[in-house]
Parts: sequence; structure tokens; C-alpha cells
Amino acid sequence: MTTKRKVEVFSAGCPACAEVESLVKNLACPSCDVAVLDMRELAVAQRAKALGVRSVPAVAIDGQLAGCCAGRGVDEDSLRAAGLGQA
Amino acid sequence: MTTKRKVEVFSAGCPACAEVESLVKNLACPSCDVAVLDMRELAVAQRAKALGVRSVPAVAIDGQLAGCCAGRGVDEDSLRAAGLGQA
Repeated sequence: MTTKRKVEVFSAGCPACAEVESLVKNLACPSCDVAVLDMRELAVAQRAKALGVRSVPAVAIDGQLAGCCAGRGVDEDSLRAAGLGQA
Repeated sequence: MTTKRKVEVFSAGCPACAEVESLVKNLACPSCDVAVLDMRELAVAQRAKALGVRSVPAVAIDGQLAGCCAGRGVDEDSLRAAGLGQA
């Protein structure tokens, strides 16, 4: 018996998320157990927060965020640099 | 008369988006015209795609994605590197 790889796709029902859901499903092999999770559900949002998800879509494999999805997020510095809050 | 800075917040109604909506509203000054847009609406999704939005939340100011939000996205290489599709 082998352990399946657990793949969690965090989605919020928007087109950008749907594209990634398709991509993951296309890439997944039989040893991947893919779950698409809706961030608008409280339990999912809590799980996402624990994993460090700051934007969607995001993908975690065996409880680790994929490199594309880690450390990303909107931050105050970059918003100010882009002109927010300046007269 | 001055032109207001146009701030577009792309959201999909999830908690991570709500945090950024609050952040932007807190940072915005009177010369910022902030609109929160729902990616689940077709016209918004099309506008987002044109701006290069690949994940939410994302913020554009005067039609330019803020640095935090540009070029981000889930890509096949990083998913494979994380183990997707491997037995």
C-alpha cells in the first residue's frame, strides 16, 4: 500500500482559480489525491491561514505551499510604492 | 481640479481578499478613488485579465498592478517541483 500525495487547491470560485484547478487536475497522477477547497468556507479559510495562504489560487502538496504560492501577498509597502495614500 | 488616483481592488469574497480591502481603504487618501471589484463578475474578470491579474486579492493603481501583485501566479514548473504529477 502506498500513501497518496495530498494536493489541496485553495480556490474562491473566480476564473483565475478555475484555470489553476484545471492545471492541477491535468498534471495530477494517480498517486495524487486532489481536493479543491473553497476559501469562502470558514474551515477552509482557517486551514489556508495555517498554511500561510495569502492569495488564491494557491496549491499545497502534503501540507506545504508550492513555491509559487508561498510568501506572496499584498503588502502595505508595495501599495504605497504604487501610489496609494499619496496626494 | 485634480484628477483622482484610481484604485482597483480585485477580490473574490474570501477572507484573504477582505483583509486587503480593509488595508487599501485604511491607506487610501482623499485623492484615491477606491473600487472593490468582484472577480466572479465577467466584466471584472476580463478587466483583471487585461491587467495581468493571476491571483486575488490584487490591487491596480491607475491601471498598473502594484508590485506585490504583478507576475505572480501558479505555474506548472513550481507545481511539479512541489511533487505534483510524480508517483
